[in-house]
Amino acid sequence: MTGTPARPPAPPGVACLTAPGDMAPYLAGVRGEKGQALAVLRPQTTEAVAACVRHCHAEGMNFVPQSGNTGLVGASVPGTQEGGVVLSLDRLRGECTVDAANRTVSVSAGLRLSELNAQLAPHGLFFPIDLGADPMIGGMIATNTGGGRYLRYGDVRRHVLGLTVVLNTAKAEVLTLGGAVRKANTGPDWRQMFIGTSGWFGVVTRAVLNVEPMVQAQAAALVVPSSHAAMLDLLRHLEIRLGPLLSAFEFMSCAAMRHTFTHVPAIANPFARGAIPQMALLIEVSRTTADAPWDTPLDEVLQAAFAEAWDLPGAPVEDALFGRAEEIWALRHALSEGVRTAGPLIAFDLGFTRDKVIAFREQMHRTLPARYPMMEICDFGHLGDGGLHFNLIKTDGPAQPSFEEGLRDWVVEQAVEGFGASFSAEHGLGPKNLRYFERYTALDPQVLRRMCGVIAANGC
Amino acid sequence: MTGTPARPPAPPGVACLTAPGDMAPYLAGVRGEKGQALAVLRPQTTEAVAACVRHCHAEGMNFVPQSGNTGLVGASVPGTQEGGVVLSLDRLRGECTVDAANRTVSVSAGLRLSELNAQLAPHGLFFPIDLGADPMIGGMIATNTGGGRYLRYGDVRRHVLGLTVVLNTAKAEVLTLGGAVRKANTGPDWRQMFIGTSGWFGVVTRAVLNVEPMVQAQAAALVVPSSHAAMLDLLRHLEIRLGPLLSAFEFMSCAAMRHTFTHVPAIANPFARGAIPQMALLIEVSRTTADAPWDTPLDEVLQAAFAEAWDLPGAPVEDALFGRAEEIWALRHALSEGVRTAGPLIAFDLGFTRDKVIAFREQMHRTLPARYPMMEICDFGHLGDGGLHFNLIKTDGPAQPSFEEGLRDWVVEQAVEGFGASFSAEHGLGPKNLRYFERYTALDPQVLRRMCGVIAANGC
Repeated sequence: MTGTPARPPAPPGVACLTAPGDMAPYLAGVRGEKGQALAVLRPQTTEAVAACVRHCHAEGMNFVPQSGNTGLVGASVPGTQEGGVVLSLDRLRGECTVDAANRTVSVSAGLRLSELNAQLAPHGLFFPIDLGADPMIGGMIATNTGGGRYLRYGDVRRHVLGLTVVLNTAKAEVLTLGGAVRKANTGPDWRQMFIGTSGWFGVVTRAVLNVEPMVQAQAAALVVPSSHAAMLDLLRHLEIRLGPLLSAFEFMSCAAMRHTFTHVPAIANPFARGAIPQMALLIEVSRTTADAPWDTPLDEVLQAAFAEAWDLPGAPVEDALFGRAEEIWALRHALSEGVRTAGPLIAFDLGFTRDKVIAFREQMHRTLPARYPMMEICDFGHLGDGGLHFNLIKTDGPAQPSFEEGLRDWVVEQAVEGFGASFSAEHGLGPKNLRYFERYTALDPQVLRRMCGVIAANGC
Repeated sequence: MTGTPARPPAPPGVACLTAPGDMAPYLAGVRGEKGQALAVLRPQTTEAVAACVRHCHAEGMNFVPQSGNTGLVGASVPGTQEGGVVLSLDRLRGECTVDAANRTVSVSAGLRLSELNAQLAPHGLFFPIDLGADPMIGGMIATNTGGGRYLRYGDVRRHVLGLTVVLNTAKAEVLTLGGAVRKANTGPDWRQMFIGTSGWFGVVTRAVLNVEPMVQAQAAALVVPSSHAAMLDLLRHLEIRLGPLLSAFEFMSCAAMRHTFTHVPAIANPFARGAIPQMALLIEVSRTTADAPWDTPLDEVLQAAFAEAWDLPGAPVEDALFGRAEEIWALRHALSEGVRTAGPLIAFDLGFTRDKVIAFREQMHRTLPARYPMMEICDFGHLGDGGLHFNLIKTDGPAQPSFEEGLRDWVVEQAVEGFGASFSAEHGLGPKNLRYFERYTALDPQVLRRMCGVIAANGC
């Protein structure tokens, strides 16, 4: 890194921003991160991205690829050292070509998810990654986003058929990897190295994605399980009985719901006499048809599947509220705001096997109060896929960085070492969790070099 | 490679076969390949596999990993040079642990698909890759097998959650990559480098797989489309109307069916007055419930979806035969035998976008007869995912190797260069198609080295 502003921050022909006011939105993250940069480069084409990468390598400038800048681990925000640039993909918007016959779309990395779905809708198609935010496609790939309907549709990785990538090398080679053909086993699948790796190895500029027939009908229930274990029994029952109709199985803790009812005025407490249960589930079924003559209405399907569940061993269902899908989803979606508003938040994005979600929660409720009595557990998550947004609210005022770091280390250690968890389920890797990558998942550098050596030697 | 039989072919403690009669089944492939080996090593554990790999590197012996030896591209059969060994996984059978709550299984690489499914059945689960053969799990991963229900369940890659791998290096490091946790974005996904790469980079000894609720009900139709284009219209209609109920959309050519009716006595011609149409489709719907009160019987669903299709613009359906699912599948499954029995076969496993399957077939029917008048096109395939088993029968006697090579090169060139096809859809990479890898998909060695360099440098 060399902070020499006399040199041009961008290669010839590439637009760039240097005025502090223009750069400000690119230097701030959604979780309060703030960074510095010499400039924000805004290339419009893959070739211009390659020119930027070559320029940065030649000038010894760090660059941070940034697409929608909606990420939660700081990966798209530059650091505070001087001399680097932001490589924004927000003008990479040249292409969005729907191939309805093949059920694929070829899309530039700078389009937002909502824009992609708007292009797909007239064809009766959608990109089935369901998120609270509205990121750009490039960032979704760099993060391998999961979301609330992973249970039904998987993560971004499942849907990436082709990528155009600019390698993060001095030559900035442009690679076209894969394409619209679904069945292709013609060598190592290099695409995978650019999915979920935060742009470390290269910048994704374009993707060919699988897309799905649009959902036309949904129904949801708000369910009170009779116990922790009952949630898993219910999940297994519904997976078998409902098959792919089951599209969400979401968990909400009492504390997360309570803060939401308190702090988010639009959300009413739907429980009888306002008594919030220890835990609740949002369970959704959905279908690509709204009016097919052979379909039983989804509300009836869901109620009938629950009628069976009442009689299961252990009586897993204590109570269930049907027929108000929008209201139930509004509660689920408002949990983030409810928790954020309730006090200083320290949030974890953990992934477990499904049974371990429950075991981890139980242990935390036993051990956290003794060690951190000022922290309140306000968690929720995607029980169907083992994802848990383990949120802690500090009830006695703001957290100092050293306190937060110690708490983070302890919780991650408990989850990873005690319960085999992933420390990043769906938010990807960035400055906020890089030390856990180094601690828990990075390969030994010598092994990594030898592995890359055998790949480089045999794969050609 | 050094052919020095005086050295021990296996490391201490690892069983090996050296008698020609014992080795014979390991040296012959299912498509008539025949190779040579000093020995067949049969390790029982991951550690013993690592000892074998270290031994081979130390002694300068080539090794070919082999699991079920059911592959169609020769990848599991040793070559004809002297001095190498087969590294068989057929005794790697120590583990098959079903986690029903998590819907995963941890399984040794030497179990066969049928054995895995037998272990899963009591839990109401199955591994949803549907194949004619019965391979071992290790080979399925090394091939990234697809199969007949890709449309519904995807390929092996989608279902691999964790891998234990022995690197193909002198040190034979054992890596445990991923595991039973579904949502884990904690660094580069190294698993992917060992899926579909024929064991080049390492030997898979154990996997954690996603498994699915078992299918309990199916219905199928044998459909005569009114034209080539009509098949795509029908596919789009059914994908939207049936959603994930649609589990197979298979194409059968007139010639493939004709040879099957002629050469496979058990298969009766189901068409009215025996008139075989130019093309037919096998269309299947399936479900995880057999008796749910909310389910319309699948035969009725399928007929009702077709009742709508009769009225679509262009009238895509000419005829449809319902309610004889087993008979229709028996025909589909017998096509391989029918074609193989009809004469000397030159087979291609091609992948296209769905519309290009049709365009390629049309062009081949126009151009192949002029160039190769003795070759009859007898194709069939998975139209739903663009896979085409493009089979050619030589009607004037056996093919000489040089003739076959010229024909292969020409067909692959037409498909890849003219129609953007993959030259290997689901059979993987091996000696039979390695030259097309080198010609069409291998990265430039310098680019590959630089890419592996940036991966080795940043990924730690």
